Amino acid sequence: MQKILYTNCVSDAVRQLVSESKPASTHIITDSNVGRDVLSRLGLDYDVIMVEPGDGNKNIQSLSHIWDSLINGGATRKSLAINIGGGVVTDMGGFAAATFKRGIRFINVPTTLLAAVDAAVGGKTGINFEGLKNEIGAFAPADAVVISTALFSTLPSAELLSGYAEMLKHGFLSSEEAYNELLGFDILHADLEGLLPLLEKSVKVKERIVGEDPFEKGIRRALNLGHTAGHAFESLAIHKGSPIPHGFAVAYGILVEMIISHSLEAFPSAELYRYASYLKEHGYGCPDISCEDYPALIAYMRHDKKNDTPSAINFTLLSKPGVPLIDRTASEAEIEAALDIFRDIME
Amino acid sequence: MQKILYTNCVSDAVRQLVSESKPASTHIITDSNVGRDVLSRLGLDYDVIMVEPGDGNKNIQSLSHIWDSLINGGATRKSLAINIGGGVVTDMGGFAAATFKRGIRFINVPTTLLAAVDAAVGGKTGINFEGLKNEIGAFAPADAVVISTALFSTLPSAELLSGYAEMLKHGFLSSEEAYNELLGFDILHADLEGLLPLLEKSVKVKERIVGEDPFEKGIRRALNLGHTAGHAFESLAIHKGSPIPHGFAVAYGILVEMIISHSLEAFPSAELYRYASYLKEHGYGCPDISCEDYPALIAYMRHDKKNDTPSAINFTLLSKPGVPLIDRTASEAEIEAALDIFRDIME
Repeated sequence: MQKILYTNCVSDAVRQLVSESKPASTHIITDSNVGRDVLSRLGLDYDVIMVEPGDGNKNIQSLSHIWDSLINGGATRKSLAINIGGGVVTDMGGFAAATFKRGIRFINVPTTLLAAVDAAVGGKTGINFEGLKNEIGAFAPADAVVISTALFSTLPSAELLSGYAEMLKHGFLSSEEAYNELLGFDILHADLEGLLPLLEKSVKVKERIVGEDPFEKGIRRALNLGHTAGHAFESLAIHKGSPIPHGFAVAYGILVEMIISHSLEAFPSAELYRYASYLKEHGYGCPDISCEDYPALIAYMRHDKKNDTPSAINFTLLSKPGVPLIDRTASEAEIEAALDIFRDIME
Repeated sequence: MQKILYTNCVSDAVRQLVSESKPASTHIITDSNVGRDVLSRLGLDYDVIMVEPGDGNKNIQSLSHIWDSLINGGATRKSLAINIGGGVVTDMGGFAAATFKRGIRFINVPTTLLAAVDAAVGGKTGINFEGLKNEIGAFAPADAVVISTALFSTLPSAELLSGYAEMLKHGFLSSEEAYNELLGFDILHADLEGLLPLLEKSVKVKERIVGEDPFEKGIRRALNLGHTAGHAFESLAIHKGSPIPHGFAVAYGILVEMIISHSLEAFPSAELYRYASYLKEHGYGCPDISCEDYPALIAYMRHDKKNDTPSAINFTLLSKPGVPLIDRTASEAEIEAALDIFRDIME
């Protein structure tokens, strides 16, 4: 099991973990933005391996650069890597560590809410390849994760909103109570101290689900709630030349999949309207789509790697908050009807 | 646990395994030599991904070529890879499969004795990187391994001798009885039918040790018997421009480490002379070294990745056949004395 520390004393926690690990050497993996905005404040005195920021650099060239730097820094099988950054850094740094000399230990220190609630926990690591997201990777949990909302103080609010969508998702997967608590918190004007206990509860939902199914053979697919439609919104936005944050796409995707859940599984409509209100009141905006985009959106859903057979589109649905239904499918007509309702509600 | 089939009906076994796996698609990974000499005889009708043969091609370019070919061949998370070849193919194909979409299933079909007894079983996969052997990789056992001595009929005898050295190593790690049986078999004029049951016993020794310690934290290091000195012989031969087969280097390394075991751990001298006689009578030759090579050999041993601290040289020694002693060290003077005795015996 991963050790997860929730603390706003990041440097102390990291030094303590390094001291317990007794590594042959310690190497921080980070990107140049985090190096400037965060690392400089932490005062950690370890070897630093720097990659270029952004998903476009989550590739085999950056991965090779990390491996090279570990070699040049004298890393052995008993060395320790510390990934400090957003999801690009924790995914790629984790994969580099998992494959260097067939695996060295690593710690994740997520510096974005999205990475804290999603990428840094649960053992999915990897890089993009030939334009395909996370096409190459491994299941390799970090030995420890240090989660601190204090690191989010320089994040733009869109970054907080983006991460909060994944927290809302965990709330829906968990219970009505958990979800109500999240809808009562104002992420648009976030109190970062107050966010930490909510974040802890949210990460524990993911931990529980991953613990039951680490290699995503079954129930872990519940975590894909919102992601079939969400990835389609994300891909379409990239294709149109105006990308949207991952979490915004997921936030929209959850609503679309709630609408499908309402149609197919009697998910209560009151819940989906409450959720939509939260999105509208907290600055999530609305994706720029018309019915002319439906064929493209459905094509993206059809090519999602979550589909094990090319003929069906796989969704995680909900019968009510806390009761996910994995491996469900919907017809094109059902998806189009849900997109109509989605636009009605959000526009 | 890996499923290991010992059979001389390779095609039937592979077809049966594919049928049981119900893969979304099936992809053979092989090299052009094996494609010509072996694959053409097997009559297997699956997609074929071809890499260039040889350890020099066990690199990130070939790995990327395999990933690319899996994508272009329409592989999904439910696809199956079949690695047919020597250690280069099973190591690299295994690593490609273990990291494609965070891991697809794979089967190994070793076509050399060395790969059958060593690389194909036990879950070590990887590639060379920046001139360092197996620097990048993962622990990822094949779902199944098909072991057949019938595939070795076109191998030159040096290849059989090379693999047999690893079988002798397993014999030493196992028991006096196992080892005596191996010394009674003439690998220089090998009866391939008769080799199969011996090979099965040998692979089971490795399976037992790997099962106790899959990630090489302890007893799995026993399998490094002969490899500290062996890798030094291998590296020196490459440096001198006249490479020797891996198994020859291991065969010599075992003898050197037996001599050290005799000095430090009272390993019986009669056993080491019997073993040396087998090497001399079965065409293993003798490495071309003089005392002027000792500093280089010791420097190679010092840089071996099995050393967790740079100050000591790590060996697996034996107190008698069947009783390995891991994490032992020897001084430079003790190693030099052993090399003197080694040359006396072998020359």
